[in-house]
Amino acid sequence: MDITELGTGILKGDRRALARAITLVESRRADHRAQAAELLEQLASSGRQAMRIGLSGTPGVGKSTFIEAFGMMLTGQGLRVAVLAVDPSSARSGGSILGDKTRMERLSRDPNAFIRPSPSQTHLGGVARRSREAVALCEAAGFDVVLIETVGVGQSETVVAEMSDLFLLLLAPAGGDELQGVKRGIMEMADMILVNKADGELKSTATRTCADYAGALRLLRKRPQDPAGFPKAMTVSAMQENGLAEAWSEMQALADWRREEGHWSGRRAQQARYWFEQEVQQALLAQLATPEARQLMQDLGDRVAHGDTAPASAAAEMLARLEGRQAGGTGSSD
Amino acid sequence: MDITELGTGILKGDRRALARAITLVESRRADHRAQAAELLEQLASSGRQAMRIGLSGTPGVGKSTFIEAFGMMLTGQGLRVAVLAVDPSSARSGGSILGDKTRMERLSRDPNAFIRPSPSQTHLGGVARRSREAVALCEAAGFDVVLIETVGVGQSETVVAEMSDLFLLLLAPAGGDELQGVKRGIMEMADMILVNKADGELKSTATRTCADYAGALRLLRKRPQDPAGFPKAMTVSAMQENGLAEAWSEMQALADWRREEGHWSGRRAQQARYWFEQEVQQALLAQLATPEARQLMQDLGDRVAHGDTAPASAAAEMLARLEGRQAGGTGSSD
Repeated sequence: MDITELGTGILKGDRRALARAITLVESRRADHRAQAAELLEQLASSGRQAMRIGLSGTPGVGKSTFIEAFGMMLTGQGLRVAVLAVDPSSARSGGSILGDKTRMERLSRDPNAFIRPSPSQTHLGGVARRSREAVALCEAAGFDVVLIETVGVGQSETVVAEMSDLFLLLLAPAGGDELQGVKRGIMEMADMILVNKADGELKSTATRTCADYAGALRLLRKRPQDPAGFPKAMTVSAMQENGLAEAWSEMQALADWRREEGHWSGRRAQQARYWFEQEVQQALLAQLATPEARQLMQDLGDRVAHGDTAPASAAAEMLARLEGRQAGGTGSSD
Repeated sequence: MDITELGTGILKGDRRALARAITLVESRRADHRAQAAELLEQLASSGRQAMRIGLSGTPGVGKSTFIEAFGMMLTGQGLRVAVLAVDPSSARSGGSILGDKTRMERLSRDPNAFIRPSPSQTHLGGVARRSREAVALCEAAGFDVVLIETVGVGQSETVVAEMSDLFLLLLAPAGGDELQGVKRGIMEMADMILVNKADGELKSTATRTCADYAGALRLLRKRPQDPAGFPKAMTVSAMQENGLAEAWSEMQALADWRREEGHWSGRRAQQARYWFEQEVQQALLAQLATPEARQLMQDLGDRVAHGDTAPASAAAEMLARLEGRQAGGTGSSD
């Protein structure tokens, strides 16, 4: 594969080149990883920045409908929109796959939109790196907005927030008791809460829910990266395409404020450093992911579990074996 | 240091040998780590098992008073009791130190008790390993009960639960609204909830609080390692020494049931394997903890943060430098 040519294609906005490059960063092969690093380094100097919008919501809140309606609104304004997904469970769940094009039929046919499902990996760390690199590729390809969606379970929200400029939480109208269901940590990550399905019979419930969340958000500690009024709760109807323009306008206002105050670039710098550190750590731990290392961990773990040896000496033996293998020159990469 | 002699001292129940051995496992020096591993391996075959009781509670619930009263009751029955602490924040907080002997004056003078404060490390992983090894040393020294206390914040509860046979949550009497303050994850780890301060004016509040928690515990999914009625909520008064015998009796009943059903040894095996895996992972990551590695991570991180290089290529450079250093033969250990 000619990496320079691939990079040129991406910079020209060639969708096939972009798709091929994402496949490359999703590969676990060591030679592919090296090529991916070369490509990303080449593109790092493009200077292009998209607005990276993280979006989380549990199944059933209307995430696909929202992304389709919101994405179509943006492309209608002449903006180019990429949709990526972070879903470490997709390989196992067998259920609906995030970023599946059939869930967003109109948007997937839009020449100004690009939709890519989550890589089918069960390891969150692996999914996270590949998604982050896919975001960087989409930026280099000149997309104006990159939407990164995830499901509201587990740690994937943290991962998505760490690669986003803005983080949105999409929620359904609900009774007051259910408000507790949103974890405080997730609330604290959100820049905006959008209560969807503010239409038909649910409209008044949505308005009430929104007021409840607005109240909950006011109880949170003020963050330096927020102007007055943020984090904010709003109602939308993705189905009726109501409130989407207002939500987008608020996102832009927040982005403008952060850019002016230096929080935008500050956050990007912090995120880049964090991803670098994560990548180093995961590369070190990847030594344990080879079939031989797994087997050895299993065998030594059995001995420890049976009480035949102490954890410390078994660990020392494992490390000695890893070093021996390294010295032999048979490295591996995840 | 003669490790065999030290081991013999511990097996004889020599308190000074035990204290010296704990200091050894707390050391970060590579030669000390090797000696610690040798000692633990030597003691692994002692076959002695204490009842390891994890205890968590936020400051102010009366943890020290409880441990002192509970410990004195156990030593009064002829049992030998060790008290250890897991507190990754102790070095920074400057506040009351867990396991501080002045907090448990009577117990600290009891010849059948041994109290050891938390090692002064801020890194939870390091504190965790040292505490787990200290537990193993106390077991080999013939203690019948090892109490491992921690504060009810952050991840230290998970760490303590992973080295305990039973996990207790000590709580204060509180209004119904405050019940939500206990995180669901912590509730799910608890084998017993003890509502302390069931005395004087707070007695009726404590009883009501206990009933609330009992209700909350009944809503949790049944765990295979629990007999009927567990996890259980009870009231105690550490100050008036009320309910301690009843609580101990329930702990023994739970322990007996788990031993008969095989859950006791199953959990121990699982824990040992987990600690072995943790130790291997941390040893790999310890390569990043040397002063040179930290500096290099800082410098490369700066370049990434400034957008001068992509995270993937900076990570590749870091790994190459680490391998180069390893080849040079200057290893280090945390």
